[in-house]
Amino acid sequence: MALVNEHYLKLPEDYFFTEIEKRTNAFCVTHPRAKVISLGVGDVSQPLPSEVVKAMHTAVDEMADEATFRGYGPGRGYRFLIDNIIKFDYQSRGVSFDHDEIFISDGAKPDTGNLGHILGRDNIIAITDPVYPVYENTAIMSGRAGQMTEDGKWSNVVYLNCLPENNFVPNLPEEKVDVIYLCYPNNPTGTALNKTELKKWVDYALENQAVIIYDGAYEAYITENDIPRSIYEIKGAKKVAIEVRSFSKTAGFTGLRCSYAVVPKELVAYTLLGEKIELNKLWLRRQTTYFNGVSYVMQRGAEAAYSRKGRKQVAELVQYYLTNAGIIKNELQQLGFQTYGGVNSPNIWIKTPNDMLSWKFFQDLLYETHIVGTPGVGFGQNGEGYFRFTGFSSRENTIEAMERIKKWV
Amino acid sequence: MALVNEHYLKLPEDYFFTEIEKRTNAFCVTHPRAKVISLGVGDVSQPLPSEVVKAMHTAVDEMADEATFRGYGPGRGYRFLIDNIIKFDYQSRGVSFDHDEIFISDGAKPDTGNLGHILGRDNIIAITDPVYPVYENTAIMSGRAGQMTEDGKWSNVVYLNCLPENNFVPNLPEEKVDVIYLCYPNNPTGTALNKTELKKWVDYALENQAVIIYDGAYEAYITENDIPRSIYEIKGAKKVAIEVRSFSKTAGFTGLRCSYAVVPKELVAYTLLGEKIELNKLWLRRQTTYFNGVSYVMQRGAEAAYSRKGRKQVAELVQYYLTNAGIIKNELQQLGFQTYGGVNSPNIWIKTPNDMLSWKFFQDLLYETHIVGTPGVGFGQNGEGYFRFTGFSSRENTIEAMERIKKWV
Repeated sequence: MALVNEHYLKLPEDYFFTEIEKRTNAFCVTHPRAKVISLGVGDVSQPLPSEVVKAMHTAVDEMADEATFRGYGPGRGYRFLIDNIIKFDYQSRGVSFDHDEIFISDGAKPDTGNLGHILGRDNIIAITDPVYPVYENTAIMSGRAGQMTEDGKWSNVVYLNCLPENNFVPNLPEEKVDVIYLCYPNNPTGTALNKTELKKWVDYALENQAVIIYDGAYEAYITENDIPRSIYEIKGAKKVAIEVRSFSKTAGFTGLRCSYAVVPKELVAYTLLGEKIELNKLWLRRQTTYFNGVSYVMQRGAEAAYSRKGRKQVAELVQYYLTNAGIIKNELQQLGFQTYGGVNSPNIWIKTPNDMLSWKFFQDLLYETHIVGTPGVGFGQNGEGYFRFTGFSSRENTIEAMERIKKWV
Repeated sequence: MALVNEHYLKLPEDYFFTEIEKRTNAFCVTHPRAKVISLGVGDVSQPLPSEVVKAMHTAVDEMADEATFRGYGPGRGYRFLIDNIIKFDYQSRGVSFDHDEIFISDGAKPDTGNLGHILGRDNIIAITDPVYPVYENTAIMSGRAGQMTEDGKWSNVVYLNCLPENNFVPNLPEEKVDVIYLCYPNNPTGTALNKTELKKWVDYALENQAVIIYDGAYEAYITENDIPRSIYEIKGAKKVAIEVRSFSKTAGFTGLRCSYAVVPKELVAYTLLGEKIELNKLWLRRQTTYFNGVSYVMQRGAEAAYSRKGRKQVAELVQYYLTNAGIIKNELQQLGFQTYGGVNSPNIWIKTPNDMLSWKFFQDLLYETHIVGTPGVGFGQNGEGYFRFTGFSSRENTIEAMERIKKWV
C-alpha cells in the first residue's frame, strides 16, 4: 500500500499565494466588469529590458542552427553568466568567488525550498515572523519542522519576532538554532538590515556552527548606503552563509525563471559525529541529480542584464517600481495608515485599521475597491493585523489604486 | 550546529553523468586535438524545429511589450499547452483528462525525483535493474531507500532483474512493493513493454494499492503497433499511475527545459490509518510551494510542437535519431556485438566483449577511438558488462563513430 508523505496534510491544501489567486478569481467570476488592480503577489508588470529581449532572440536563433545548438548545459550553469555575477554582484562589493561557488537555478523560491534537502532533518531552524512562507512551508512538508504545538507554532522552529517595537529587526534567539533563514530586504515588511545588525547574525552563526540561508531576492532595491548588498560583505560570512538571488524582481524574470545561489567552498555543516562536510559538494549533487539546469535562452537573457546597457535598463526598472512604492507609502501615510518599508524595498507593510483581521481587510479591499493586496497573516502569526502592498504594478494602476483607496477610507 | 543530510554521503560524490562528463573532460584536456564523438549522455544534437523557433521568437516579443507581458504563470502551467497535450498525446489514444490533471514542469528528471517527496518515507520501492539512476539516487538521498546491505543493494528497494534471459522484461516482485518506477521504452536497454506486459503491472498495483511512476520520456520512439504509448491505455491505470513525459527527446528541449506529469484525480495513496489521499492535490501543493513554473517562452515553444507543422517536424527529428540508432545497431551486430533495443528506442544496449567491465570499456573506447558512450554499471548492478549507445548524435558523427569502431575491434 503506497503511503503519502503525511507532513503535507499538516498544512492548508493551498499554498498561500494560490489561495489569494483563488479568491481573486472567485471575485472576478462574480464581478466580470470590475477592473481589478493587483498590488498583491510580488509579480512585475513592466516588459523585459530591450537588451534582454535582444539576447534571447539571438539565443533562440542559435538553437535553430546545428552549428550553434546547445543541449544540456553545465550542471552549475553557464560560465558566461556566472562570470558576470561574480564581477558585477560581488567583485564590485569587494567580494571574490570562484566560478564553482555559483549555481544558476530557476528561482529563489525553488532554491530556498530545496536547500533544506541537503541539511539534516533534526536541525532547529529559525525564521523571522513574519516572513515569506516558503521557508516554513517546505520545512513542514519535509518533516523538518517537528510537531505543531498548541499555539500553532512548530516544535523545531524558533520564531524571531519582527514587530514595530523592534523596528522589525529580529533579536538573536535565546535558544540555540542550527539553520537561520534571513530575507533582507525583508519580504513582507520591507525592512533592511544594516551592517551592524547583519554582523550580529554572522557572528552568531560562526559561534554556533550554524548555517544562514540568506534570501537576497530584493537586494537591488536597497537605496541606503549603510545597508550591505550581500551577506558576504560581512567578515566570516563565507564560512556560514548561502546567498540566494533572483532575476525576477530586477530584470523582470518572474515569467522566465532564472536565479542563482552562492554556496562558498568554505561553508561546512556537520555529520552527527562532527565531521565537516562541504555544502558546495552536496548542493552540486542535489542540483545535478534532481535538476537539469536553466534554459539556455534564459541564461543568455540574464547575462544581457549585466551588459552596460542592460545594467542601466535594470536600474531604471528598479527605480520605476521603487517610485511606485514611494507613491503607495506616501498616499497611505497621508490617509493615516501606519506604514513600514518601501524605502529599500518594493514592499510596503501597513497596519490594518483598528486591528482588522488581515483576511477581512483583503476581502473588504477586493470587494469594495477591486484592489488585490496580501494579508499579513499569510507571512506568520505576527503578520495578523498587517497587510502588504507592492510597487510592482504599472504607474498608472498604482496611482489609480491610491485614488480608489482615498475615496474608500 | 548545522547538520547535513547524511543520506547524501552514502552515494558517490558525483552524479553518474557528471562523472562521465568529468572523465571526458579529463581526456579532452590531455588530448586537445582529438575529435571526440559523444554517443553517451542522451543529449540531442539537431536544431529545434522551425515552428518551435518561430513560437519562441513571438513569445519573446510578447515579453517585450507591456500589453502582452506575462509574469508568474499558473501553477500547473498554461492551458494553451495543457489542452494540446490532452488532445494530441491522450485523446488520440482514447484517453481523456481534465486540464487540472496535467502539470507542466521543467524536466522528466526533476519530476521523477521530486515525485518521491509527496510519498511516505517508508514505502518499499521497486525499480528495474538496470534503469536510469535518478529513481534510486533520489530515494537514497531522501532516506527512502533504507540501509545499504552487504551486496550493495538497499533494504527498502526491490530490484527487478532485467537480463537477456527475460528479454529485459521484469517479472512481478515476489514481495509486496508500494511504489514502482517503470521507464518504458526503457533507458538504458531500449526495451518496450507490450500491452499484456504492462497490464500485469497495472493489475499488480490495483491489487496491492501500489503507485506506479511511469517515465515515458522515450514514448515518441515507439515504432511497433502493439506497444502502448501511454500507461493510461491500460484499463484501471488512472487509479494507480503517474506518467511523466518530456519535450527533450522529441522537440529537442534538453537545453530548454519543458516536460509534464499526469497525476489523475482518481489516483490515491494512503495515510498510515488507511485514509485515501488524492495525489493530484499533494503534487499541486508541492509544485506551487517548491517551484514557480516553466518559462513562458518555453511553454509557447512546446505548444508549437503540437501544431500541424510542428508535429511533422518532431516526427522527422525522431525518425532521424531512430535511423541513427538503426545504423549503430546494424553496424555493431555485424561486428559481432550482442545488441538490444534500438527499435522502439534511440538507446542501444550492448554486451561488452568478453564481459569486460563497463568502465574499462568506456575508458578503452574513449582513449582508443575518441568515442563517449555510457557504462552499463551506472544503471545498476545488472548493467555491469553492458554498455549504452544513443542515436542522438548527428548522422555524420554516428557514421564516423561506427567507422572508428570497425577499425578498432
